[in-house]
Amino acid sequence: MPTTDPAGLSPTLQLAFELLRRPSVTPDDLGCQDLMIERLEALGFHVERLPFGDVENFWATRGHHGPLLAFAGHTDVVPSGPHVRWDYPPFEPCIDDDGMLRGRGAADMKGSLAAMVTAVERFVAAHPDHHGKIGFLITSDEEGPAVDGTRAVVEHLRERHERLDYCIVGEPSSSEALGDVIKNGRRGSLGGVLHVKGTQGHVAYPHLASNPIHQAMPALNALVNECWDGGNAFFPATSFQISNFRAGTGATNVIPGEVEVVFNFRFSTEVTHRELQARTASLLDAHGLDYHIDWTLNGEPFLTAEGELVEAALHGVESVMGRQPRLSTSGGTSDGRFIATLGSQVVELGPCNATIHQANERIHAADLDDLSRIYEAVLTKLFVNGSAQP
Amino acid sequence: MPTTDPAGLSPTLQLAFELLRRPSVTPDDLGCQDLMIERLEALGFHVERLPFGDVENFWATRGHHGPLLAFAGHTDVVPSGPHVRWDYPPFEPCIDDDGMLRGRGAADMKGSLAAMVTAVERFVAAHPDHHGKIGFLITSDEEGPAVDGTRAVVEHLRERHERLDYCIVGEPSSSEALGDVIKNGRRGSLGGVLHVKGTQGHVAYPHLASNPIHQAMPALNALVNECWDGGNAFFPATSFQISNFRAGTGATNVIPGEVEVVFNFRFSTEVTHRELQARTASLLDAHGLDYHIDWTLNGEPFLTAEGELVEAALHGVESVMGRQPRLSTSGGTSDGRFIATLGSQVVELGPCNATIHQANERIHAADLDDLSRIYEAVLTKLFVNGSAQP
Ligand SMILES: [Zn+2]
Ligand SMILES: [Zn+2]
Repeated sequence: MPTTDPAGLSPTLQLAFELLRRPSVTPDDLGCQDLMIERLEALGFHVERLPFGDVENFWATRGHHGPLLAFAGHTDVVPSGPHVRWDYPPFEPCIDDDGMLRGRGAADMKGSLAAMVTAVERFVAAHPDHHGKIGFLITSDEEGPAVDGTRAVVEHLRERHERLDYCIVGEPSSSEALGDVIKNGRRGSLGGVLHVKGTQGHVAYPHLASNPIHQAMPALNALVNECWDGGNAFFPATSFQISNFRAGTGATNVIPGEVEVVFNFRFSTEVTHRELQARTASLLDAHGLDYHIDWTLNGEPFLTAEGELVEAALHGVESVMGRQPRLSTSGGTSDGRFIATLGSQVVELGPCNATIHQANERIHAADLDDLSRIYEAVLTKLFVNGSAQP
Repeated sequence: MPTTDPAGLSPTLQLAFELLRRPSVTPDDLGCQDLMIERLEALGFHVERLPFGDVENFWATRGHHGPLLAFAGHTDVVPSGPHVRWDYPPFEPCIDDDGMLRGRGAADMKGSLAAMVTAVERFVAAHPDHHGKIGFLITSDEEGPAVDGTRAVVEHLRERHERLDYCIVGEPSSSEALGDVIKNGRRGSLGGVLHVKGTQGHVAYPHLASNPIHQAMPALNALVNECWDGGNAFFPATSFQISNFRAGTGATNVIPGEVEVVFNFRFSTEVTHRELQARTASLLDAHGLDYHIDWTLNGEPFLTAEGELVEAALHGVESVMGRQPRLSTSGGTSDGRFIATLGSQVVELGPCNATIHQANERIHAADLDDLSRIYEAVLTKLFVNGSAQP
């Protein structure tokens, strides 16, 4: 019989149940932040609500001196999709007979939010006059456009010259077992929409037309085969992928007048987005194309190669789980890209990501209690025993 | 003031006006064939109506011995498009102040139909007991699917072992001046829809995906650059054109699982469609693609390199227009491809094609009277003075 009543569960799992019950699909928060704020204010946090557009955000801090460690995360979740694909209802959390906490957001990332809150509760109870400052940067739009969420809050903090020394983003970084992977950076993401112009015509009269598909392909091939960089110790080589290719009127006898190609770079810290733009243009120019590119910089790469935070995060996992985490920069983008622009050390540390954005999203319930202990251990390492002490 | 009243015009122009007044957009005939049949029956033609599906066709013959020359054509026209683009209403024929006969179908090809009928009327009046047989093969579906039109009639004639020695298709073959170009063949048309399979994935994890766009492009480049043949004295080199290229989910961060590419060969008599299919497959195989092609043979190439019909057609233009036509096989397909399969000598000879399928379709009104005289001259050359005499 699955456990649907949180009474008797740990404080972390009880809070996770309360958050998971709210179908807070982006950009809705549906009271999740109220739950967190209530708990944080009880601990003496100063809380500032920062709504932008239809996005709920808050920024909370406790402590008045020393470096600041912020916990960052989001209360929004991706849609559940058809409920028939779920073995248990997506917004009625339970712990199944295998001990799995189930529900949309269990892994990404309401579980982490609950673990952050209870970790801080225990830490503050043990060290009411702790050195250092603790912050929470919470948004309801990480899964959506991500414009009025963390990005907007970060700009607000930047204008106020707020320092944010360390940041743990609660994204599900783990792969096979809790804490096996800590992300200490992310590749940059640069998108482009390429339009290549030709001359429309009839396939029977190709000499009167100029086929932009034929023209574009050798140039695109060159982009695919280009070695953009060799990566480095922290990043794999920069990759180029074409995601969409559209040309043609639908008619089988018409040579189209234009091609639209959508592509994306995931890039390392060995190149800049401006270098990628310039090299792309020069390859296309070399092929004599009549083209135009609309660029979108989704995020610069960021990297926390070493420092107190990485050290504390490695220590936290080792002390709680007895395993040595692997540092990684792979995967998609996260809100860490915005926070890193403040000059912060940033790591992502959260539960296993095997089921995120899928039906039957779930994690080991026990992992959440361990994750809360890991977060607490990081706080202790940084502010009680560690290198961030005065 | 444009002439809208046909009274006082030549019999050819009067008949053209009557045909042009009927908005017989494919597959509608709207009585055009009735008009022709009435005139042909008055000349002693035996007429057989051969409707297939919603397409009107007829086959008419006169004469009982000697070779058969058929006039072939269509009473259907392509849609007019928005009437506001026309300087004169598309289905209210007139002759404008510059002497241009205006209306949808003036060039393609109701003008030719009128010229054929009046040419035969004059020829029969002059030679009531002419040597040879005269035929008319008329359809109302040349501009559409062309399945239940000429193709079906040709199959019907083939089953009856009907001989069709010579055929003049009234398609607008002329370029700058009436009769400057006679088409004595057409390239073949072979279409293909190529599906290339890859493995869908996320642009952030390209090693877990296999991008079918990246895979397809080098192979498609090879097809574009392949020299399929060198053409010959009558045909330009075989050409390959990609008309449509579709890949991608619309999302900018998803590597698609499949690519669809639509392409077309226009091919000479130096290769067969089976050779093109085999060579395409072997080029794609050489690139290791996981693919599938759906082929459509739109038409085999045909060629009437020489013979009595070409000779008579050249003579007809020279004697009426005083100019030397150029033989050509360029351009799209025509119903000639079906008729040629009966072993017939086939030429296309008709008015100037500058405005076909466009708004303000028009030809010199005087050209229709000349075209009728050319057709008559061909009949005379073949059956009275020429090589087809007994
Ligand atoms: Zn997330
Ligand atoms: Zn036509």
